[in-house]
Amino acid sequence: MRYFIEFAYKGTYYHGSQFQPNGVTVQGVMEEAFLTILRQPVGLVFAGRTDAGVHAMQMFAHFDLDVTPPTPERLNRLLPTDIAVYRIFPVEADKHARFSATSRTYEYRINTRKSPFTRDTRTYITNALDFDAMNAAAEYLLGTHDFASFCKAHTDSKTTICTVTEAYWRADAEGAVFTITANRFLRNMVRAVVGTLLDVGRQKLSPQEFEAIIQSQSRQAAGQSAPSEGLFLTHVRY
Amino acid sequence: MRYFIEFAYKGTYYHGSQFQPNGVTVQGVMEEAFLTILRQPVGLVFAGRTDAGVHAMQMFAHFDLDVTPPTPERLNRLLPTDIAVYRIFPVEADKHARFSATSRTYEYRINTRKSPFTRDTRTYITNALDFDAMNAAAEYLLGTHDFASFCKAHTDSKTTICTVTEAYWRADAEGAVFTITANRFLRNMVRAVVGTLLDVGRQKLSPQEFEAIIQSQSRQAAGQSAPSEGLFLTHVRY
Repeated sequence: MRYFIEFAYKGTYYHGSQFQPNGVTVQGVMEEAFLTILRQPVGLVFAGRTDAGVHAMQMFAHFDLDVTPPTPERLNRLLPTDIAVYRIFPVEADKHARFSATSRTYEYRINTRKSPFTRDTRTYITNALDFDAMNAAAEYLLGTHDFASFCKAHTDSKTTICTVTEAYWRADAEGAVFTITANRFLRNMVRAVVGTLLDVGRQKLSPQEFEAIIQSQSRQAAGQSAPSEGLFLTHVRY
Repeated sequence: MRYFIEFAYKGTYYHGSQFQPNGVTVQGVMEEAFLTILRQPVGLVFAGRTDAGVHAMQMFAHFDLDVTPPTPERLNRLLPTDIAVYRIFPVEADKHARFSATSRTYEYRINTRKSPFTRDTRTYITNALDFDAMNAAAEYLLGTHDFASFCKAHTDSKTTICTVTEAYWRADAEGAVFTITANRFLRNMVRAVVGTLLDVGRQKLSPQEFEAIIQSQSRQAAGQSAPSEGLFLTHVRY
């Protein structure tokens, strides 16, 4: 039987979501909890991969199991405080956490004044930012484009074409939040997009230059990646 | 010249707000930053005292200084990430951070489901809670009462009478938040009140029994103190 598990994690203390032999990862810790409870290995296939320090408010994974899966409560007692399981539910045998997902949403959260509470979960930007310019630039992201300019080099993606359906900044109580929704994301894409939009906000780039960077399809043209701590995967849709 | 400083801190890693010789405190770290910048000692008088692990979203202190005080930006660069200075401004010579304050507001934040992001800033309660009963009980706090039932023994307060003007629970996205405003608070008072209200929420006590606990003026009658991590001083008014 195939199951989906819905969960969330704070990425600060993990070497990313995806299992690796030399580092504590979200997948590794979760598979360990399943092994402890079920006394058999369970392989989790995540909806997506997040880098070290990046968080997920909503992540899904699938797994196949012939016995009854543990309850979220049982897993939560065993898991560390920075991973929370919300639901486990059976799905059709061909439903795939990664390939069946139709869209994902990320948020990037910045503080424009120092906050004592959000060191791990928002990025503190001391420069003044022109949010109107950042929103004007963000509009160029909408639609279907080749996003090679915002993709880590030497990635194994077959294509760098994505369809972005939402991309905007809004002010909130502590600063501002960038929301971006697409059918798929390339490695490092959101952080590269945000880093380049911050250059627009600091008036190092105009919105038109931002558009030209998208069209150049060259990672060298874009700005630096924004730090990991402000980035959250917030929704995965099927 | 007398100045007020407005600031906020995350209390998790401090032995409370108030200076003590054998432990890192918010006051100690802030006075150290002043000393580093000004090369002269500056004594801070806080609006109130918070225990180890308790946070402040808004705290004030006063200090007297004959030279120009440092800017908030300068202090913020020197202070750790979990203390943020918002404003420094001159006040009348007789204005006192503690005695001139007319009211304070605290919030106590609880999660009713596991959250990966709020271990240090909200208290996770696994029991189901009856918020209607908790709000019915909280109404008995309103007005001027002797709150000896919710005061740590052997305190140096001359009186245990306080006037509470606001005391209610509201649901939020992650659980619930208790807000309480009073002219003054006794040591440990909010945590003792919340701990006892949680006993009402778990139906160990009725709202009427909660009222009787207030009237008993006996700390033994009340419930356990709620943990420190969910407690925030949110406003101090002058």
